[in-house]
Formats: sequence, C-alpha cells, structure tokens
Amino acid sequence: SRSLSLAVIPGDGIGQEVVAEGLKVLSAVLPQDVKLETREFDFGAKRYHATGQTLTDEDLDRLKEHDAILLGAIGDPSVPSGVLERGFLLKLRFAFDHHVNLRPSKLFPGVGTPLAGSPEIDFVVVREGTEGPYTGNGGSIRTGTPQEVATEVSLNTAFGIERVVRDAYARAQARPRKKLTLVHKNNVLVHAGHLWTRIFQAVGAEYPEVSTDYLHVDAATIFLVTQPERFDVIVTDNLFGDIITDLAAAVSGGIGVAASGNINPGREFPSMFEPVHGSAPDIAGQSKADPTATVLSVALLLRHLGYDTEADRIDAAVQADLAERADLPVRSTVEIGDALAARVSG
Amino acid sequence: SRSLSLAVIPGDGIGQEVVAEGLKVLSAVLPQDVKLETREFDFGAKRYHATGQTLTDEDLDRLKEHDAILLGAIGDPSVPSGVLERGFLLKLRFAFDHHVNLRPSKLFPGVGTPLAGSPEIDFVVVREGTEGPYTGNGGSIRTGTPQEVATEVSLNTAFGIERVVRDAYARAQARPRKKLTLVHKNNVLVHAGHLWTRIFQAVGAEYPEVSTDYLHVDAATIFLVTQPERFDVIVTDNLFGDIITDLAAAVSGGIGVAASGNINPGREFPSMFEPVHGSAPDIAGQSKADPTATVLSVALLLRHLGYDTEADRIDAAVQADLAERADLPVRSTVEIGDALAARVSG
Ligand SMILES: CC(C)[C@H](C(=O)O)[C@@H](O)C(=O)O
Ligand SMILES: CC(C)[C@H](C(=O)O)[C@@H](O)C(=O)O
Repeated sequence: SRSLSLAVIPGDGIGQEVVAEGLKVLSAVLPQDVKLETREFDFGAKRYHATGQTLTDEDLDRLKEHDAILLGAIGDPSVPSGVLERGFLLKLRFAFDHHVNLRPSKLFPGVGTPLAGSPEIDFVVVREGTEGPYTGNGGSIRTGTPQEVATEVSLNTAFGIERVVRDAYARAQARPRKKLTLVHKNNVLVHAGHLWTRIFQAVGAEYPEVSTDYLHVDAATIFLVTQPERFDVIVTDNLFGDIITDLAAAVSGGIGVAASGNINPGREFPSMFEPVHGSAPDIAGQSKADPTATVLSVALLLRHLGYDTEADRIDAAVQADLAERADLPVRSTVEIGDALAARVSG
Repeated sequence: SRSLSLAVIPGDGIGQEVVAEGLKVLSAVLPQDVKLETREFDFGAKRYHATGQTLTDEDLDRLKEHDAILLGAIGDPSVPSGVLERGFLLKLRFAFDHHVNLRPSKLFPGVGTPLAGSPEIDFVVVREGTEGPYTGNGGSIRTGTPQEVATEVSLNTAFGIERVVRDAYARAQARPRKKLTLVHKNNVLVHAGHLWTRIFQAVGAEYPEVSTDYLHVDAATIFLVTQPERFDVIVTDNLFGDIITDLAAAVSGGIGVAASGNINPGREFPSMFEPVHGSAPDIAGQSKADPTATVLSVALLLRHLGYDTEADRIDAAVQADLAERADLPVRSTVEIGDALAARVSG
C-alpha cells in the first residue's frame, strides 16, 4: 500500500478554513490504498508574535520529511510588512530550491472576469522562483538621511535560467497548442535579458515542435487584457512572474480560483502548494472564503506526485461546481468544500 | 510677442505621420502672437543604419536649444533590440534629467476598453525616469557559457525619489480627489522599498489634504483591471511604472490615445513629449495610425510650458472627437488631424 505524507500549514486568516476544505477534498479523492498522513505546522503571525520565529532550521528539517506541503495563507497586518514574506515564504522557496513557480490561469465557464466578452483563457505561467531580484541582494548607505542610496541586485545564472526554461518547454510540449512565450525586458535589462534570451533560444532547438514567442513585460500586460487567448505557456523571471500572475489571476476569474505550486521538479525537497490569495483577515473566521483555489492547489500537488487521475477528477469537479454557481445561493467555505468532496468521490 | 521653439523628432514608422498631425493641431491652437519655430531631427533607424549614430553629444547640444521636444516613435525591426532604446530613448531621458515620466490614463466617453462595464478611469501615473533598474548598471561574467552570471542593479537615491514624490504630491493636491498611491514591492525589494516608503511618508506630512495609499505592484495590476476608478495619482519606480502604464493604457482605451511626457520640471533641459505607442512598422505609410495620442502629448507639452488654456482646448477637442467616432466611418491619420485642428481653432 502507498502513502502520502503531507506537511500542512494553515497559516493566518482564512488559511485555516480553506486548508480544511482542501484536505477534505484530498481525502475524498485519494484511492483507498493510499495512506494519507498529515502533520500540521503552526507557522505564521501567531507563532511569530509568541516566539519571534518565522522558520527555523529545525522547522526545515521537519518539513523535509514530507512528500509535499500544503499552505493556506501567511500574513497578518499585525506583523510588519516583509517579515513573514521574507522570513517564511521566500526563505522556504530558497531553502527547498522551489525554482519552478507554477501558476495556471484558466477562465472556467460560468466564472466572472473583468474583461468584456468572454475570452478563452487557458495558459500557465512558469515563474522562476529562486533568482532575479528576489535574492535579497542589495543594501543601502547613509540610510535614513537625505543622502541615502539603496540598491537591489537581480542575480541571474545560466544554471538557474536553463532549468526553469527546460521545465517550461517540457510543459509546452505536453500541451495541445505547444506554444511558449518568454516574457522579459531585454531591451533595457540587457545583461539578464540577453542571458534569458540566449538560453530560451538554445533550449528551444531541442523542442522543434514548440513554437516560441517573445514579449517585453510591459507589452505582455497589454495582451493579458486584450488577447489573453494568445498565451499557452509563459516562462519568465521571478519579479515579472510575480506581477503578471496576479494580473493573470485577475482576468481569469480572480484570486478565488488561482492555484499555485512552488515546485522542486527533481523532488530533492518537498514542493509547496498554495492558493495565490492572501490571508484576507477582513473575512477570516466567517466561512466566507472560497476554498476553490486551495482545492485546485491540491490538484497541482497530486499531479506533481504522479496522481494524475485524481488531479483530473478534482479539476473536473471544480469546473462542474463553478459552472453551476450562478444558479445557487452564496455558499459557505464548508459548503463549497463539501460539494467538491462529494463530486470527486461520486 | 512670444515664441515657442520646438525640436521635432518624427522618428521611425508611423512617427512621421502622427507628428505631422500633432504639429497641425499645435499650430491651430497657438495664439496669433506666439511664434512657433520648429526644427526637425532625423534620429532613428535610418540614421543609425547610415551613420551608426543614435544620439551624439552635438545632437544633445542642438536639442538643448529648444523649449521642448516632440517625438513620434523610435524603433524598427531592422535594428537589434535595445540599440535605439538605450542609445536614443534612455540616453535622452538621462542626459536631460527627465525624472518625471508623466502618463495620464483617461477613458474618454465613446472609447472602447477591454474591461466589462464602463468603469470611470481618470488617473495619472508619475513614473520616476532616471533611476531604478534603468540605470544600465549590471553586467555578466563567463558570458555565453553554462556558468554565466548576469546582474542588473537597481539604483535608488533619496534625492531622486524625493523630487519625483514631491512632484506627484503637487499633482495630487491640484486634482479634485487629491489621492496619491505609492506602488512598489517593499515587502521583497526592502532596501529600495523602505527608501521609497520613508520618503513617501515624509513628504506626505507636507500635504495633509492629500490622502495616501500603498499597493504592491502585483496587487496594483489587479486593481487596474478590477477597480481602476480607485486611482487618482500613482507614483512609482521606473520599471514598475513602465509595466503599469502599458496596462493602464490598455484598460483606458488603448495605446492609440495614450500620451506621455518625459519631464524635467525645473526646465533646466527641454522636456520631451511622445505617444506611448511605438513605430508600428506594419501600418507605416498607410495613413492608418491614430494621431490622437500624439495630439494629447502636444497638450501635455503645452501645459508644461504654461499654455494651460490651449492644452484644455486640445483635451476638449479630443474628447469631442472621440465621442463622435462610433458614428463615423474609419478616418485616415490626416482626417483625424484635420478634424482636431478644426475643433481647436473653431
Ligand atoms: C508575498 C510575496 C513575497 C509573494 C511574492 O512576491 O512572490 C507573493 O506576492 C506571491 O506572488 O507569491
Ligand atoms: C522603449 C523602452 C525603453 C521604454 C521604456 O521601457 O521605458 C518604453 O517601454 C516606454 O515605456 O517608454
């Protein structure tokens, strides 16, 4: 019999509520012979206030013992901006070498979009997760004075870019349209830009069936609102990926349905899956949060671990549920979770 | 009698066509007693191919003799990406210390938007123009090898940030809603982010009537498509400004109507005004380009030089023209220019 050992991090705000539904659907979809073991971790604002800790070396060791990590949301207004982001979220990405940040954007039938018409949106962004301007490289002198100078250094390596570009080509190759778009700003950020472009072209030679395209990040934001159907797979840098995936989520149904994976494709470390939305303290504890993004993140988790059939069933259940929403009264977090669990086990 | 001395850079592609209409409207709106002197410069792809030059020190000296610069568009597929961008556009911004990059976003009645509903959009982005990741700071080692490392350094100074933040507060103070939003990513880019945040708050103390707000750049892209009416004035860094102003143009009628100014507020150097769109070589020479963005840029130019009444007349003419477009057959570049010129002189 198989087993799936999961580290569960409910986190702050609505995290607890949406993770509970994610686990409910996971239990419902898993085959009988798979033994699911979960271990809960208390990371987030509460622990930070109680202990001053965000993520220790021992924490990392304990997390490492699992096949994957499911996270709800981390962040609370009571913690200064940046502390939990860098002390927990980014620290974990870097420690576990989550170099593929996977963010699918699909406008499901029945789901609202701020865009006019109902464009067909079905693409996935492969965002680099361990380099670029996110490395914490930079500093300041004469800090706090009128003469302050502050720098931020974007670090880019052929090694780091090639592995994520390769992952993106493989994903494009596996999709019907087989199209890959590189998004960067290589006319201004020429050093990093040339490196990305060179590797994008070199790896492309190994994927003759994949058609390729290049867009500056500013132009990409235009197309994301005027022609989102032109995208299939996008590969991009850490910061550009951060920006365009929020925009992508907004045009394809909002962050209520946006899933994401912080993936270590070689599985040297457990990958982490989480909804794109934050902890939404304003609606926490009221069973108002939509657990769909978390449930879709569970599907990404299953796919990463090779449970493709189960992932497909979750995706289908979400699609069916969303299609019927317009005709239903507003449901609670738990009711949506129950409905999805019923569908995947049915 | 007064005089207005203008450096005119038609540039590449549709640049020539739209600039001609911009000048037509300018001539039509200027009071009789203002002597308009224009001098044309041949910067762009043709000159680059003929001479290898993009912008020389002598060119800068000659440009400096004018009150302002009107630019059509620079860029052609025959020139390698980055050469004209850095060799001309960015070089000029830095040489003439164009630290305020002003980009209004207004959805005029009758103009299409990719957004559903017809949101009220009327905001202006004040983008820093001479710092951040645009300084050309960075490099690479082991270039072209599997061990390449490339960096891009974002340079940020209290001096440079304070002057653009101050400009943005003054603009917010002068608008009815008096609201200023800082857009950055201060939870990740902490050094630059703290500097921006500190100065934003410090200068804000001098503008008690201006209400302030902060958004991470990723969240800002969401609001630009879901709640664009929440913005009044936005101040932001060079790269974030590049990205969000293209998105802003897309949601507020497209780059056919997006104007921009590269401004040196103290007038030590001539400021430059240009449409946000590029040279569009695919439609060049066919009188298909919409000169409206250039005409609106002429209005920004006039406002910068103190011709507020004339700028208002251009804005009103454009607004009236756009409102009637839906009922008219498609017009040529020249026809639109003629119509606008007739309106401002009428
Ligand atoms: C919270 C923050 C550090 C994070 C990021 O910038 O990567 C978030 O915006 C995201 O996209 O996951
Ligand atoms: C052409 C390019 C250098 C430029 C920029 O990035 O600033 C353009 O995108 C703009 O926004 O004016």
